[in-house]
Amino acid sequence: MSGKRPRRVSVIGAGTCDAAVYEAARLLGRLLAGHGCDIVCGGLGGVMAGVCQGAREAGGRTIGILPGDDPAAANPFVNVPIVTGMGIARNVLVVKNGDAVVALSGGAGTLSEIGLALKLGRPVVALGPYGTLPGVRSAKTPEEAAAMVAAFCRDDQLSES
Amino acid sequence: MSGKRPRRVSVIGAGTCDAAVYEAARLLGRLLAGHGCDIVCGGLGGVMAGVCQGAREAGGRTIGILPGDDPAAANPFVNVPIVTGMGIARNVLVVKNGDAVVALSGGAGTLSEIGLALKLGRPVVALGPYGTLPGVRSAKTPEEAAAMVAAFCRDDQLSES
Amino acid sequence: MSGKRPRRVSVIGAGTCDAAVYEAARLLGRLLAGHGCDIVCGGLGGVMAGVCQGAREAGGRTIGILPGDDPAAANPFVNVPIVTGMGIARNVLVVKNGDAVVALSGGAGTLSEIGLALKLGRPVVALGPYGTLPGVRSAKTPEEAAAMVAAFCRDDQLSES
Amino acid sequence: MSGKRPRRVSVIGAGTCDAAVYEAARLLGRLLAGHGCDIVCGGLGGVMAGVCQGAREAGGRTIGILPGDDPAAANPFVNVPIVTGMGIARNVLVVKNGDAVVALSGGAGTLSEIGLALKLGRPVVALGPYGTLPGVRSAKTPEEAAAMVAAFCRDDQLSES
Repeated sequence: MSGKRPRRVSVIGAGTCDAAVYEAARLLGRLLAGHGCDIVCGGLGGVMAGVCQGAREAGGRTIGILPGDDPAAANPFVNVPIVTGMGIARNVLVVKNGDAVVALSGGAGTLSEIGLALKLGRPVVALGPYGTLPGVRSAKTPEEAAAMVAAFCRDDQLSES
Repeated sequence: MSGKRPRRVSVIGAGTCDAAVYEAARLLGRLLAGHGCDIVCGGLGGVMAGVCQGAREAGGRTIGILPGDDPAAANPFVNVPIVTGMGIARNVLVVKNGDAVVALSGGAGTLSEIGLALKLGRPVVALGPYGTLPGVRSAKTPEEAAAMVAAFCRDDQLSES
Repeated sequence: MSGKRPRRVSVIGAGTCDAAVYEAARLLGRLLAGHGCDIVCGGLGGVMAGVCQGAREAGGRTIGILPGDDPAAANPFVNVPIVTGMGIARNVLVVKNGDAVVALSGGAGTLSEIGLALKLGRPVVALGPYGTLPGVRSAKTPEEAAAMVAAFCRDDQLSES
Repeated sequence: MSGKRPRRVSVIGAGTCDAAVYEAARLLGRLLAGHGCDIVCGGLGGVMAGVCQGAREAGGRTIGILPGDDPAAANPFVNVPIVTGMGIARNVLVVKNGDAVVALSGGAGTLSEIGLALKLGRPVVALGPYGTLPGVRSAKTPEEAAAMVAAFCRDDQLSES
């Protein structure tokens, strides 16, 4: 009944951002959904909302793993809100539930998720300053980031967790 | 874009069970999906598989919150597997993500989830021996359990958190 | 340098209680410390404070695993506060860190911990109503509960987790 | 009975390391214990074992928050092993339980802990490559790192969380 599980990409980034970053996240979401990937994110605003909006516009599915206990805290573009009540420890679940990770902008929380993703052996693509960290692949545009993730998928290079 | 969030019911119970209990779980899943409820469960076998199979047969959506790190461990009727790597601590997430809880058969793990659900203020309906615990509503059949949960929903008596 | 690890007993129970239950918890703490056991608990008030006070009075060591992020929320008899920010999910850690579990009074939270302890294979002794649950050993007095736990220790019947 | 809670410093770093790094960790542990600080760490080998050995040699107390379920997995210099069964999510607890964080060497896991610590507002001092990350204070030697942490303590500049 379930058939092949769709690939999932965890998208991480700033919880508040300017319009340019939001639009980059939205484009990223649209492109990833176009590649048939579900989106996993932290479920809140900023980059998380942008990527979910884009994915939904392209017919994709979005999972938001929230720090608190209230599913209504999810941004309106989340299909499946998961409450945790675990605060920042939910970052681990955000990263674990993706086959690959794309970071877009972001601060310390995003840095923690990149570290967790690398530790878990997930491929990590970063748009923005974290692209220079060891083990992280740097992308210049949402198109390039989406293409890199899609290439992982095609080549079955993604960790199966 | 999201509209009204569908109600969710956490269904908890034994990870291995005989055919009669499996069919009761399957019927429960079918009835709950017929009431428009999504199913949340621990994602594994036994009662968890039965309720997911039934819900899917009735066009419902199923979320499986897994103890381990491998989404492929989910039963084939789970739409949205969530890996946690948290072992038994994932029981908390199973309960938190439902607006109400139905227990069907089950042992110590189910008992822990009933305690967590009562502590969190969730309405709890039990089919089977746990129906005699203080604070738990007892149901004799899957039909009765589904009707009780549906009544909670209609009356807006469900906790929103 | 570490030598043999001291046995640990997780004591669970109501976060608020009357003087009689508090004194029973305190006596239990004194007796368990006298048997050379460290105390693990949820770190807050009521039974948790009583058992820690008694243990400290007998020269024992007490570990309080807290639901929140503030170590100052621990009762004043906790030697080692551990903050978690995980809310009720910290119950799992309370139970996991004991070699055996004693329940004293308590409500739904205590019930959840008994379920978790049984699931994890820990011996569970209960003073009060939960003594009738399947798999739980019932004790009539703190002396009897402490003696049962001490017997587990001597006989090496405790799970090594 | 409890008096003033001792300051705690979370020390993070590689789980396996060469002798030079081990000795730096050991010296760091000795110095921090000399400043009256308890040590919190992930409880395993490498930097975690070195800092615990040093702290114990100076009469300090060491807390090891373990990824698994077996307290015997702790290095022999851990006074208080805390099992979690949460895998890498225990990194959050390692960081939360310190008033300040010192990173010594380390890879992706350490990077995740630095991100978590910054997100939680903890002062972070790094010996080694992570000293160049924004928001992290760089130290050249264990002596300098210990002095920086001690200065935080004296000035009450540590977050109380």
